[in-house]
Parts: sequence; structure tokens; C-alpha cells
Amino acid sequence: MERKVVAVDLGGSKMRVAVADEQGKIYEQITISTDVKGGADSVISSLLSSIRVMQSHFGNQAIKAVGVAVAGQVEAPAGVVRFAPNLYWHDVALGSRLQQILNLPVEVVNDVRAATWGEMCFGAGSGCKELICVFFGTGIGGGMVLNGELVAGYNNSAGEVGHLILSSEGAVCTCGNRGCWETLAGGWAIEKLLKAAAAEQPLRAKALLNYAGGEIDQLIPSHLFLAALDKDPLALSLAGKVIQAMADGVKSLAHIFNPQLIILGGGLVERAPWLVEKIEAEVKLRALKTAAEKLQVRKAECGESAPLLGVANLAIKKAALEG
Amino acid sequence: MERKVVAVDLGGSKMRVAVADEQGKIYEQITISTDVKGGADSVISSLLSSIRVMQSHFGNQAIKAVGVAVAGQVEAPAGVVRFAPNLYWHDVALGSRLQQILNLPVEVVNDVRAATWGEMCFGAGSGCKELICVFFGTGIGGGMVLNGELVAGYNNSAGEVGHLILSSEGAVCTCGNRGCWETLAGGWAIEKLLKAAAAEQPLRAKALLNYAGGEIDQLIPSHLFLAALDKDPLALSLAGKVIQAMADGVKSLAHIFNPQLIILGGGLVERAPWLVEKIEAEVKLRALKTAAEKLQVRKAECGESAPLLGVANLAIKKAALEG
Repeated sequence: MERKVVAVDLGGSKMRVAVADEQGKIYEQITISTDVKGGADSVISSLLSSIRVMQSHFGNQAIKAVGVAVAGQVEAPAGVVRFAPNLYWHDVALGSRLQQILNLPVEVVNDVRAATWGEMCFGAGSGCKELICVFFGTGIGGGMVLNGELVAGYNNSAGEVGHLILSSEGAVCTCGNRGCWETLAGGWAIEKLLKAAAAEQPLRAKALLNYAGGEIDQLIPSHLFLAALDKDPLALSLAGKVIQAMADGVKSLAHIFNPQLIILGGGLVERAPWLVEKIEAEVKLRALKTAAEKLQVRKAECGESAPLLGVANLAIKKAALEG
Repeated sequence: MERKVVAVDLGGSKMRVAVADEQGKIYEQITISTDVKGGADSVISSLLSSIRVMQSHFGNQAIKAVGVAVAGQVEAPAGVVRFAPNLYWHDVALGSRLQQILNLPVEVVNDVRAATWGEMCFGAGSGCKELICVFFGTGIGGGMVLNGELVAGYNNSAGEVGHLILSSEGAVCTCGNRGCWETLAGGWAIEKLLKAAAAEQPLRAKALLNYAGGEIDQLIPSHLFLAALDKDPLALSLAGKVIQAMADGVKSLAHIFNPQLIILGGGLVERAPWLVEKIEAEVKLRALKTAAEKLQVRKAECGESAPLLGVANLAIKKAALEG
């Protein structure tokens, strides 16, 4: 009999609850909105209801564990969510609460790390034991696998690659430092860049603004990459700088880790997959020979399911260890 | 009986050959100059003579292995030196050549990685299994220990932290990229900075130049830190920028790895140990809370002996595995 788990991707606006097996097959999936305002009790209560729906559907015996991927800092192995900004959670003992009620092994993992594990087990990193994932979304998150193991960090907070400093005289980041990678290549910064360019040069920004229905405040990062594909001069110029910044950070990671494989994913890359080739070319051209010569750069393959697949596999591993 | 090894720190101007044990005790040490012009054969021949002197002194039976730390890219486990710029070596099969002649296990390791291992086993990292070493010398090198193991990289070239990009619009580095960490905080760049400042503002640079006997081309990085201690205004201003750059790179590493401990060493730090406290204060003040709250920053403790001690321990481990 297949060992199945309930895997959850718990975000600030919605949570996805799925039943998956260790081969990365998803049997069923439901998405419900996250009642952040109701606080942790309300969120955990809807989470439990969804898990019970899955249990009754697949049979209590079939579900061997529960895995939850959450955007925040998680204290392992107890699964305490120390801080999850999108949920406004501080020190929520999610793991032990679910475990006591469900009487099942529960694994709680940071979502970027879960997604990295998902890509390694079932996606672009399949078969590789030394890799780095970089996810370009609103921010920039990273996950590292060395020797077949996720790098957790002493405080379980490794992988904050969005706060690599790339331009020490640059713009102020949300973290208070100047010139973090996110200030140059994160979705929030690209959006700011587009809005500023459109406000300053509305005529030059016409092609860009067309994608936003003519409204400056509707501009989002993917408009930049669409207009660049159309060869709009302003978009090409801005996109060139963004791609350069994306590549600079990837180069830095290649120099530090000398990994076999770097996987690029996240919303920005999913909407403009051609970015991967551009970034790879720049990295191959400019990185140290020793870091670049055997390096592979690939697009992530699991898309939005990466955290679910990753945390499902980690939960199965935990159940196998405990059982 | 103590298991002893011959440990070698093979540099471009000199090689240090020592007998050490697994507790990090050095029994005897000789330093001879490296005949780089004579090529690999000549260097290996003097290396062998020194090893034999040690063998006859301590008894053939006492020496269980040989370890060589070399500034370059080493292919493990065979110990081929792929590229060592200071020795002008390409693809020298150092490990197998020594092994065949001496009939002993031979471990060849990159010197920065050996020094990192030395600090972990016998220095500032003693008892810690998750740490990063940064050595500020002519360049900037780094070593990482995760889970008690050295991070090697796919091509055995991990740790090129000197080529983290910190200022994408900055000066051109020896590697061809702009604004690498080395261009802001490496010894070669600091020397260039001092010489340029002294050439442009000879009067303001008087205190600095005094340390160099009044000669611009005699200026070296430690003059900057000496003049800064004297509170010379130009030196304080330049040193402030250098320290900021040192801290920016350390912060980036803290964000990526979230390590328990960062050890700072190398010639610049040995000559101005007060740098450690300055860098630590800036990192603690500005790094993400999750990365900074449990982080320790310490000065390296093994000094110049770190590579010898590290490679001695690695050679003993190899001998234990093979024997």
C-alpha cells in the first residue's frame, strides 16, 4: 500500500491542502482562504477541518503523516513557527498542536526550503545531491542542498539570499540595509522601478503602460518582461539591469558554493521563463572558471506545487523514522 | 603511541614542513624557500627531502601520513593540483606522486579549506560544527563547515567568497567582474586605495606616509589600520569604508548560511585584531535578526599554523580510514 500524507502549503492569503505520496503524486487538492484576521486558532481550526476531510476521503489508515510548508522561520524539530510575517504569527506551536490532535507525525518546514526539497526530489534537481534553488518572487528566497541534505542554519534561517548585499551604495531594503539583492531584482523592487519610470517618462513608458491598462499603479513586474519581449526600448533597458542583477547574485552563489546545479524558479521566472537562459549565459560568461565550468542552470519544474511535494516527502521521511 | 604526520603548507615563496599529531601539537617545523622557477619536479623533490628529514628524525614508523595544504584548486580524492597560480602549476598529480614514493597515505587540500579545518579542530571553532571562516589577506578566501564537514563544492572550489559581488557598479576585479568583495576589502585593493589617496592628497596622507617611510610605493594595508588607530582623519575615513565593506560581505554570508560562528582571520586581521570587534558590531546591528541573534563572531586563533594543523588532522583521518 502506498504511504500517503496530507501536505499543506500555508500562505497568508490561501492554504493549499493536498494528499500526496512519496513518489510525488498528488491525489487530491483543495484550496481555501486563510483567515489571517481570526488569528492562529482560526487558521489551525480550518487546517484541521481540511485534513479531516482528506482523512475521511482516503481512510484514516492511509494517511501516515502531515507536512506543513509555511512562509516563515520554523524551529525544528518541534515545528514552532517562530515568525511568519504574512500570517502575523509569533511563536505558534503548530507542529505539536497538530500532532496532539491528529496523533500523527507532523513536519513543519519553511516553504522555500520545502520547495527546494520538492525540486530536488521530483523536479529540476532530480538525481542531484548538491544544488541551490533561487526563487524570484515578491522577494528572493533560496534553498541549498549539500550532500543530499537541506542546509538549515543554526537558527533554522539559512537561505536568506535576498539579503545578499549587491550594491552597498544602493537603495534601502525592507531589512534596513542598502542594496540587498531584493532591492535590485525582487518583485517589489521591480514594481517600484516600473512605477517610477512610468511617472518620470510617461511617453517612453507607453508600451509598458499598455500592459497595465494605462494605469501606473497597475504595473507589475511581468509587464516589464512582456514589453521587453516586444523589444520596447525602455523595457529592454530596465530589464537588462534587472537581469544583470539577477545574474550577479547567482554568480555570487556559484562562487561561494561551487554547486553542481542552480535551479531558478518563483513567480517572475514562471511568467518569463526565458530569463533562465539570459541569466545562465551571463553567469557562464563571467563567473570564475572553476565555478562555471561544470555548473548547470535550470528552470524549476514543479511550479507552485514544489512546496507541497517537498513537504510531503519530508513528512513521509519523518513518519518512516518515527514509525 | 601518538600517531604523527608530516604536514606541509606549500606556498609560492616558501614551504613549511612540520611534524604534528592529531591533538594539534607541532613537534618540529622547518621552512624552506619554494623553487617555483624550477617547476613542479624541483618543488616536489625538495618537499620529499624535507619529509625524509622528518621521517629519519622521528622514525619511519612514527609518521603515518602526509598532508599538503596548497593555495589552489585541488581535485579530490586523488590530490591533483588542477591550478595553483602562485606555483604556476597546472594539473600536477601531487598526491599520487608523493604516495607512490613514500608509500604513505597522502592528503592534498586547498590551503583555505585546511585552515578552516584547523580553526575548527584546534582554534576559534573548537567544539562547533557549523561555521564559516573568512581570511582577509591579499585576497579574501573562505571556508565553510556544515554538519561537521567541510563544504567542498562540485568542482572542489567552494569558498571563493572574495568574488561575492558587493558593488555591481564598482571597480574591476582580477576575475573580470565588477565590485567583487576583494575590490573593496582585499589587501591588494586596500594597497591600491592607499597609494591613490597618497598620490592625490600627499598633505592629507602625511600620517599614512610616515608609516611607509614617506614612500608611496611602500604603503601596505596595515599602515592604514595603524594610522586609523592614531585617529588620523584620512585613515579613519578610508578605514571606515574598508570596514564597512568587510562587514557587508560577512553580513551576506550570515544571511546565506545562518551559521553559529563566523571566524575572521588572515594577515589583515592578524595585524589589526581590533577589526574583528568593529565588523562584529556592524553585523550585529544590521543583519537580519534571525541571522544575527545567535551568531558569534571571533578572531581566528591558529594564525599562520592553521593550514598546517588542519591538513595534519585531515591526513590522520585519511590514514585511519585507509589503515
